[in-house]
Amino acid sequence: MTMRNKIAVGVLGATGAVGQRFVQLLAEHPWFEIAALAASERSAGKRYAEVCKWVIPGDPPPTVLDMVVQPLEPTLPARLVFSALPADVAREVEPQFAQAGYAVCTNASAYRPVEDVPLLIPEVNADHVTLIEGQRRGRGWPGLIVASPNCTITGVALPLKPLDMAFGVRKVFMASMQAISGAGYPGVASLDILDNVIPYIAGEEEKFEQELRKMLGRVVDGRHVNANLVLSAHANRVPVFDGHTVSLSVGFERRATVDEVLAALRDFRGVEIARGLPSAPERPLVVRTEPDRPQPRRDRDAEGGMAISVGRVRPCPLLDMRMTTVSHNTLRGAASGAILNAELLVATGYVER
Amino acid sequence: MTMRNKIAVGVLGATGAVGQRFVQLLAEHPWFEIAALAASERSAGKRYAEVCKWVIPGDPPPTVLDMVVQPLEPTLPARLVFSALPADVAREVEPQFAQAGYAVCTNASAYRPVEDVPLLIPEVNADHVTLIEGQRRGRGWPGLIVASPNCTITGVALPLKPLDMAFGVRKVFMASMQAISGAGYPGVASLDILDNVIPYIAGEEEKFEQELRKMLGRVVDGRHVNANLVLSAHANRVPVFDGHTVSLSVGFERRATVDEVLAALRDFRGVEIARGLPSAPERPLVVRTEPDRPQPRRDRDAEGGMAISVGRVRPCPLLDMRMTTVSHNTLRGAASGAILNAELLVATGYVER
Amino acid sequence: MTMRNKIAVGVLGATGAVGQRFVQLLAEHPWFEIAALAASERSAGKRYAEVCKWVIPGDPPPTVLDMVVQPLEPTLPARLVFSALPADVAREVEPQFAQAGYAVCTNASAYRPVEDVPLLIPEVNADHVTLIEGQRRGRGWPGLIVASPNCTITGVALPLKPLDMAFGVRKVFMASMQAISGAGYPGVASLDILDNVIPYIAGEEEKFEQELRKMLGRVVDGRHVNANLVLSAHANRVPVFDGHTVSLSVGFERRATVDEVLAALRDFRGVEIARGLPSAPERPLVVRTEPDRPQPRRDRDAEGGMAISVGRVRPCPLLDMRMTTVSHNTLRGAASGAILNAELLVATGYVER
Amino acid sequence: MTMRNKIAVGVLGATGAVGQRFVQLLAEHPWFEIAALAASERSAGKRYAEVCKWVIPGDPPPTVLDMVVQPLEPTLPARLVFSALPADVAREVEPQFAQAGYAVCTNASAYRPVEDVPLLIPEVNADHVTLIEGQRRGRGWPGLIVASPNCTITGVALPLKPLDMAFGVRKVFMASMQAISGAGYPGVASLDILDNVIPYIAGEEEKFEQELRKMLGRVVDGRHVNANLVLSAHANRVPVFDGHTVSLSVGFERRATVDEVLAALRDFRGVEIARGLPSAPERPLVVRTEPDRPQPRRDRDAEGGMAISVGRVRPCPLLDMRMTTVSHNTLRGAASGAILNAELLVATGYVER
Repeated sequence: MTMRNKIAVGVLGATGAVGQRFVQLLAEHPWFEIAALAASERSAGKRYAEVCKWVIPGDPPPTVLDMVVQPLEPTLPARLVFSALPADVAREVEPQFAQAGYAVCTNASAYRPVEDVPLLIPEVNADHVTLIEGQRRGRGWPGLIVASPNCTITGVALPLKPLDMAFGVRKVFMASMQAISGAGYPGVASLDILDNVIPYIAGEEEKFEQELRKMLGRVVDGRHVNANLVLSAHANRVPVFDGHTVSLSVGFERRATVDEVLAALRDFRGVEIARGLPSAPERPLVVRTEPDRPQPRRDRDAEGGMAISVGRVRPCPLLDMRMTTVSHNTLRGAASGAILNAELLVATGYVER
Repeated sequence: MTMRNKIAVGVLGATGAVGQRFVQLLAEHPWFEIAALAASERSAGKRYAEVCKWVIPGDPPPTVLDMVVQPLEPTLPARLVFSALPADVAREVEPQFAQAGYAVCTNASAYRPVEDVPLLIPEVNADHVTLIEGQRRGRGWPGLIVASPNCTITGVALPLKPLDMAFGVRKVFMASMQAISGAGYPGVASLDILDNVIPYIAGEEEKFEQELRKMLGRVVDGRHVNANLVLSAHANRVPVFDGHTVSLSVGFERRATVDEVLAALRDFRGVEIARGLPSAPERPLVVRTEPDRPQPRRDRDAEGGMAISVGRVRPCPLLDMRMTTVSHNTLRGAASGAILNAELLVATGYVER
Repeated sequence: MTMRNKIAVGVLGATGAVGQRFVQLLAEHPWFEIAALAASERSAGKRYAEVCKWVIPGDPPPTVLDMVVQPLEPTLPARLVFSALPADVAREVEPQFAQAGYAVCTNASAYRPVEDVPLLIPEVNADHVTLIEGQRRGRGWPGLIVASPNCTITGVALPLKPLDMAFGVRKVFMASMQAISGAGYPGVASLDILDNVIPYIAGEEEKFEQELRKMLGRVVDGRHVNANLVLSAHANRVPVFDGHTVSLSVGFERRATVDEVLAALRDFRGVEIARGLPSAPERPLVVRTEPDRPQPRRDRDAEGGMAISVGRVRPCPLLDMRMTTVSHNTLRGAASGAILNAELLVATGYVER
Repeated sequence: MTMRNKIAVGVLGATGAVGQRFVQLLAEHPWFEIAALAASERSAGKRYAEVCKWVIPGDPPPTVLDMVVQPLEPTLPARLVFSALPADVAREVEPQFAQAGYAVCTNASAYRPVEDVPLLIPEVNADHVTLIEGQRRGRGWPGLIVASPNCTITGVALPLKPLDMAFGVRKVFMASMQAISGAGYPGVASLDILDNVIPYIAGEEEKFEQELRKMLGRVVDGRHVNANLVLSAHANRVPVFDGHTVSLSVGFERRATVDEVLAALRDFRGVEIARGLPSAPERPLVVRTEPDRPQPRRDRDAEGGMAISVGRVRPCPLLDMRMTTVSHNTLRGAASGAILNAELLVATGYVER
């Protein structure tokens, strides 16, 4: 399905690293067309090429070089906006856009924990999109906000979804080894990370717990109910460019063999409505059986960076099963994930064609 | 205490990376003097400078350059030998030396799991040295073998010792991020590890479990009894030169607050007899309270690479306490650790002055 | 132009890192079809999936997994073979294939310096292909050998070609910073290159001088004549995965301004016959004008890894002009380069459709 | 020689990366004693431990943790100050200290090119110290300013000094591969340098040319005369923590063989007065003869980071001789170098004991 008339979209925070990813991906999107780039006052009024120091791979799309950057005000010629704003700016600006009728797909953390804001990974919890009803009612918004989760927990929630459906996930131990690109640009100083590991990322472990419980939770009578699980996390930064790796031990409600776990992971295709979307991968999970996979450099680009690779599935002496996951933090875990959410909004009618 | 007449020692496997560390450290040791360097047939009979491609920091000590490398036969002019042999060679050669009357301090894994071979970290279990009695009786050896543990579990056993004494360690979750030097030379291919994580090290997770239970165990009536604990491990290799980092969650028999855990770690000095040894650090554990420490590059050299740094002590939602540890894998975790064991043998009379 | 019946090709040394690149690229080639994979005796007779530890990005193409690896004998069901053999094996095996009627496109260094073997970069010296006439006459071969140059000098010869045509290149200073993938797998030990530079690569500097003079030389009366230039090289290895960077100072016969040099680089399209080939980039040279480009990670993939990026063009106090170049060493500098050569052989009739 | 009463010194810009090195080195200096730490207004008035995020190896010396940081005003209880200020601040502040009678040993670039400011490496041009006479006369300063050179050119000037004395250095081609620590903290973003080379460092190539000519120049009748040489430089940043590597080609006035060059390098001890200084290395140059040395990680710490390692000495097809040098950029090339200059000031009486 390509659209005759593409949907005009805007990017908020278009000059940062995640904003650049949005611009790169949207420039070739079959449904969406970049109609506006917005950023802070410092950049507004200037040409994108002039204010944007391009830091991600490849070159900026030629079509955006001469676009004049707009201020962060809800007067953009678009109906749908992608937000790559810092959390504190997002907190203020995103409701203004929703209030003005825009559909906001945000990658910022500001509204992720809020009960009436769906925290979406289409293959995991597309049905949470119905929380928008209550959001609109409660806040009087003609527009809406849906949020993408933290990049690291995205790579955990996807493989845990089929395991939760099959065996009931109750306990999760995770130690992450996160790529430097997760911190944006300039982000992590090379003097801090070369030949080093930083065993701390501010606020990260708390987000993992909160967001996983929200995403694996259910919508009951139009309200969201968290999943009943306990998560213990260790967040580490390692000298890897892209791709978050997680050592994962999982405790189930029901016993499961390695083969049953592998089968559940392999068979997972996500909920029906998410399958045909332009950014949806053929397989949301890629199961690796080599003893030393997945690895971030070798697996981060699986299915265009949209599949989570899972491997080393083996019993856990303390919980039930151990495994390792790798996800692409700036694609599935950030810009591509938010675009997939927007596609879901179109497919479910929350954004009109 | 320096000795008028130093003890003549030999190094088995003197040309490899760990062998080089032994040579470097022993060249300046107050009690020991290098009397023989031995290696495989390929090197035997040639000058050390000729056969040894020096790969560790610094230059080889001038005094060893012209030493002729000996074959791996128990005819070395020494009473004490340090073994940096590969496991399969060690399995064959080390008993020959013990049989011939040598005290063997080995860094190889071959005899670590064997019940009558003490697996020693002096500050943790110096009393296990008494297993030598049974070893000698049972095998009819005039010599002996004592083993140093796996480099990664060394950095875990040391901080767990005071916690075990105070609160009883029953469950351990650990995810390691291990340095490339742990794999020897040439070891890990740069094409495998640059911009990457390898979530697998052959045999490593099994060693962690086995060796920790052995070291935290007790000697009862001259026989060794394993500690009663369950360990679940994830072993990862990261692009760090030296220094193993471990994300650690620990479950105790008795409840403990963060402050009690910090106090137990800070107060730990190891058993009495280990304290004055030349290679023993002032503090076996260094407690860091910055939010983002310990880090391998910044903390691996604490107390000359002999102290384990512990930080990020905080409660664990699943077990009792979370923390991060960093240890120097080629110093405390390999050559220096084995030398400290030899010093203990001298202090306890198993090697005569 | 796609071909109805693809040309059956073989890969010699199919299990190594460069062999894997050949396999990956040929699996999707519009003209060529993999009919045989050959390797040393150790692998021959076994399934490719079984003997090949895949080390390059992505997964092996499904179509080759079950192919049985052939021995290195000239009985492969193909007319054209790509050689990724080590130099010493290539020296023996490649003439056997040429003798048996195969066209050999080799990436090995064995025959590069030989006068009657064309050392080809199609955009630079497609006309050298005519040396095949003398090669066949002189050696009585029904087949032929053409060689691809050293990966580093490839990235220098391409930008120097238009400068040589316009201004006459007489003196070249170059200091290379070469990626680890240039050394194959396992290649460079991580203990040697992490947090380090190795200022030496065996034989490399001599190859640069010899090969550049050969490629910029001419064919006169069917014989090859070297270019008249002096090159001084410093070869360094740096901790970069893919992409060789070269600091380059060039002395010309005729004076040239920065603008004239930039124009010559920008206008270069290579010789006519090379332009339409399937692997030929739209622009063989990409000129960067940012102060800090080109960079290996950001520019190695320009034009699918087939374009050389050139930047920092500025006067040289000693010679005439300074600049920096970046090339993809395993694509343009190895497998893709050899495939482009094969395409040229088809376009010029040396390999029949 | 240790002093009974140490000389009270101050550090300007004490909280930055170079300032921290000064603090670390001066805390254990036999002649100097830290009496004052000064920094920008943001830090002034607070405890050093509170405002200084320690980024260099090791921990801050306990003695300075509680010192109150002073403002950058010439009222410090010291006679000698070390400046690690940014160039623009240095330009303003350093003359105020000289005017107020302080001897300023600066690592900043602000006054390096100024004719009456000695640009000092004691072993190279200790005699330039006499320029202080004219400086004081011309400016009416009771104090003085002497500058340390750029970290990269330091590692070039030292080996070129004996070659200049023996053969006359006339032409220099250099390509640097500089460590990230040369850019201070936070300095280079990890997203810019991991798996990458940056072929540009602002202003660096111009400094090399200017400073080398100044340091190899002479003092004639109390005035400085530049050396007559031409330098062409390529400055590159590579993912190395500490240690600048330079590929160097040198043209001489008189012919020289490899052996003569090696002898000149090996015999160099620097000028007489510099030899006994506390920070002066036994050998300012360490000649390596292995084919693949010097390397930054393996050679940066030679003689406590004060010796330049030189290797790969071989003829140059374009100039006379090629070689590779490695120097420690934050020790010899920054803090230790400035401290050595201060020691020279004491030895020559410009600073009183």
